[in-house]
Order: sequence, then C-alpha cells, then structure tokens
Amino acid sequence: MSDTKPAILLVQPQLAPLGLMLEAEFTVWRLWQGPPLEASRTIGALVVAGDAPVDQMLAEGLPRLGLIACFTAGYEGVDLTWARTRGLKVSHSPAVNGEDVADLALGLMLAAWRRIVEGDALVRGGEWRADEKLITPSLTGRQVGIVGLGVIGEAIARRAEAFGLKVAWWGPHEKDAPWPRAASLKALASESDILFIAARSTEENRGMINADILAALGPHGLLVNVARGALVDETALIAALKEGRLGMAALDVFATEPTPPERWADVPNVVLSPHAAAATTGALPKMFALTRENLRRFFAGEPLVNPVVE
Amino acid sequence: MSDTKPAILLVQPQLAPLGLMLEAEFTVWRLWQGPPLEASRTIGALVVAGDAPVDQMLAEGLPRLGLIACFTAGYEGVDLTWARTRGLKVSHSPAVNGEDVADLALGLMLAAWRRIVEGDALVRGGEWRADEKLITPSLTGRQVGIVGLGVIGEAIARRAEAFGLKVAWWGPHEKDAPWPRAASLKALASESDILFIAARSTEENRGMINADILAALGPHGLLVNVARGALVDETALIAALKEGRLGMAALDVFATEPTPPERWADVPNVVLSPHAAAATTGALPKMFALTRENLRRFFAGEPLVNPVVE
Repeated sequence: MSDTKPAILLVQPQLAPLGLMLEAEFTVWRLWQGPPLEASRTIGALVVAGDAPVDQMLAEGLPRLGLIACFTAGYEGVDLTWARTRGLKVSHSPAVNGEDVADLALGLMLAAWRRIVEGDALVRGGEWRADEKLITPSLTGRQVGIVGLGVIGEAIARRAEAFGLKVAWWGPHEKDAPWPRAASLKALASESDILFIAARSTEENRGMINADILAALGPHGLLVNVARGALVDETALIAALKEGRLGMAALDVFATEPTPPERWADVPNVVLSPHAAAATTGALPKMFALTRENLRRFFAGEPLVNPVVE
Repeated sequence: MSDTKPAILLVQPQLAPLGLMLEAEFTVWRLWQGPPLEASRTIGALVVAGDAPVDQMLAEGLPRLGLIACFTAGYEGVDLTWARTRGLKVSHSPAVNGEDVADLALGLMLAAWRRIVEGDALVRGGEWRADEKLITPSLTGRQVGIVGLGVIGEAIARRAEAFGLKVAWWGPHEKDAPWPRAASLKALASESDILFIAARSTEENRGMINADILAALGPHGLLVNVARGALVDETALIAALKEGRLGMAALDVFATEPTPPERWADVPNVVLSPHAAAATTGALPKMFALTRENLRRFFAGEPLVNPVVE
C-alpha cells in the first residue's frame, strides 16, 4: 500500500512529531534515520524547518522533488532564486502564530524588566531578605520600538499600548499604521527603552542589530528578539551586555540553535528562551494543518495554499 | 537641633531606606536598632509597612503617639477599631502603584503560562535539544477572572484584553465596569483559565481562595496572586499543585514573608516572586512622598492627604 502514497522526506529531527500524523496520507522518510537509496527515486517533497539552510546537494539528488514545504512561517533557509531555477515550489505556514509570538515577546520583556527569573531564583535560594527589596524600574510611559511591523509586530504593538507604553516602529517600507515610523533603525533604537525585533530574516538584513544599534539603545535599554538570531550580531550583543553598554536582553532566538550554554554563563542581565515563541498547542496544529494541505495540493496538482514560490 | 524636629519611629527594617530621606525633617528612630527609652516620650508617629500587624503594646507605650503612617497602600496590619479607640490617626499611600502591580501580574501570568523561568533554566543547563520543543498552551481566547476590581484589578483587565483574553471579575460589591461580574467567587473560578487575586486583604476575606475555589479553577487553571498571602489558603494551594488538582500558580505574596524556600522545593508548576510588584523606581518615590507629606501634615496639625482614620 505504502508505494501508492506520495513520498515525502522530513529533514530535521525536530519535525519528528509530524511523521506519525502524515503517515496516513504519505510515505514518510526521515533524513536522520538514513532512508534507503531507492527512496531517493520516489521523494516528491521535503518538509523542513524554514530557518535552517536547505541542503541543495540533497535536493538535487532527488529527481522527482517538486516542493519544499516549510513547516514554519520563516523560509530564510531556502534560496528562492535557486528554487526557481530548479523548478521547485516552496510553501510555508504564515500568520498562524502571531498572537502566540507576541505573547512570549511581552512575557520576555516583563521577565527582563521586572527581573522575574532572578526573583524566582532569589526566593528559591533563600536569599529573599526582609530588609532588601528587589526594586526595578517602572514600565509606564516608556518608549517601545518595533523592528518589522508585520502580523507579529502589530500584535506586540497592541499589547504594549495596554501597558501604557508608547509605540513606534521601523521597517524598510512605509505602511499604513496607527503608530509612527521612525526615520531609521538607528533613530528608533535611540528613542526606545525597549526594542522588539519582529522582522523577517533575509540575506540583506543579516546582523542589522549591530554594535551601533545596540549603542543607540543604550545602557538602560532592553533588546527583545523573537524573530531570528541572524538579525543580531550576537558577538556584539554579548560584549555590550558584559560591558554595560546595553542594559538588558531577552532572547528566544540565537545565532546557532540550540545555543551553547557556556556562551551565556558570564553574560549579565539576559533572559534566555529555547525558541519557544511559536511552539504552542494553539499554533502547532495550525502549522501542521497548513503543511499537510500544501503537501496534499502539491501532489494533487492543485495550487498551494501558502506559496512562496509556485 | 534634632530635639526640635518631630520624632518618628520606623518599625520594620525594610523601611530603612526611608530613614535617611526623612532625617532632614524628622528625628528618626529605628525600632530594629533598639532606640533609647527616653525616645518613647517624644515619638509622635509610627511609619510601618501596612501589611504587618502593628504591635499594640509598642504603640500604647508611646504617650505622644498620634499617627500610624503606612508606607504601603495596604493597611491590614492596623486594627482600625483599636486605632479609633486610642485616638490614633492612620494614613496610607494608595493608588500610586496600580500600573506597576498590574505589569508584574501579567509578567507572572506569562512566565507561568509560557514557562519562561523553566525555559531560561533549560537553555542555561544545556538541556535545550533540537528534537524536543518546549510546547505550551496558547493564551488567545482564554478566560481571565479578576478577584477585586480596584485600581489594580482594572489595570490587569485592560492589559489582559490586549492579549485577546476574555475578562470577568468578582467582588463583594456590584460596580459599574465594562466587564461582567460573576455570580460568585466560585463561579468566577469555575469559568476562568487564569484567576488574578487583586483584592484588599481584610479579616473577612482571610483564606477565601480555599481548596474549594482552587478545585473550581482546576487542573489546567493558573492562580496569580499579587495582593496578599492572607487571601489564599497556602497549605491547600501547595497540596493542590502537588496533586495536580491545580495547574499552575504564580505568587508575589505569601502566608509569611520572606517565605521559607523549603516550603516550595518540591512544589511543581509555580513561579515565585519576592513581593516585588509595587517595588519600582516609579512607585517607591511616590509612596515616599505621600508618607512624608502625611507625616508633615500630621505634625503641622493639618488634614492628612491619605487618611484611613482621621
């Protein structure tokens, strides 16, 4: 029976939970289990986490490959020019997790600003003393800057306003929005107490949150990144935190993932999160449903629901 | 010179930082430093953290005492009937920290719901694995219940709405509000995914968040307490968390403070915070200014700014 079902290849082990659910409709191969050579003649689609670079050698060794289905909203791991040249379609799972990502972004902001992780450790360590308060700055009236005003950026903005925070944003393109657009990324960082990164990651904006931008955010500023590690010069970020040139950071994404813990061992004022912003019981089933539907349509010869390249 | 200034007594060591700032205008005695006996003849006002019981024996040994100035918004440590009988005035510092307390309340909700403290420990401990996501429930569309719709409760409600949460509340008195009032505290807990405690603590509501209310909140519910530990039956809370009858808790306040860390060592799904909700650089100066002004007015024979008993 399984030969009659279209064959797909799951590329990264974190996609393992999808396998069982896709097996009803597809013959599922798992790259990390070393599929047999003969599978290469049948695989019609790759399922990938879109933030990791797609192995082009692997793809080019699959003669029947026609679709790269990104389980994620992000697809920066796929070279779209290459995909077009090779006649490959690309799909992704957009806009299903904006609210969840914004929730974690605000949670990380509050955890850093109000020192919630530190407070928990202090109580558990028996270091809470009656004569020493854990005193933090007030948030009310502070200025928030949002880099990238897409679905996630707008969801962050709406939440921030309810906290009495002022909101501005920057992105490369003007758009109609109820919040002012800063003159530049650097101007936004200079004006902000809290800078949220919510931009799509591309080759063009790699490392755009560099030493200069971090200096503009300054020694009392907080950087919150729920987008992609590649957007930030992480070496410059660590140096700025260690030297007190940046106040705080709260990071859900990193230059490499999982990030090596020793990299952060002596970095002060940072909250670390294991790329969990979109990993919710609400978002994952929707991402799964979109991925399955894009696969189904591809093999049925129908237009994709969420095409990046078609 | 100091004899010409009115004399005041700071009661708890956590009020120590006030001492230096009040010395310009007052002769400041500190109870924890053992003031000399002759000071008892001069002290006209006590400055207290209003949540701790005022020592009536101490107060009655001060013949010139006329004011109990609570540095805090809360004044449940003062027996108001006793104060009136003794001819003592009572002041407090209300409504200066509602936004700050609501900020931490939402921060604790997000930290518990999205497992932010756990995520940070996981990354630092090198336990973040590529093939195992930290998956949490989505918040969007959940039901929030707020116990006590005062300044803090309303500030929590406004923030919660921006997260796409539905809001209801309960308090002993009907009031005009844009959110529905539940039929009872138990009905509110039953309907809620997240229950915020934001009520004033009184003798009447001691332990009102009891085993019955926690059962109504249930095995997927989250209790957030930024009010007072006395409102919750903490023994019942710990039992419910250990047995999985309550989903999660995030606590800024405790039955005794500082809470003994061993009490929480084997309690799962709880975020602990060292009574820090109102301890902000924004709120503390305002609380200080109100306390100083109430003291100044009392000694000048003028009406108090924030009287509880006058």
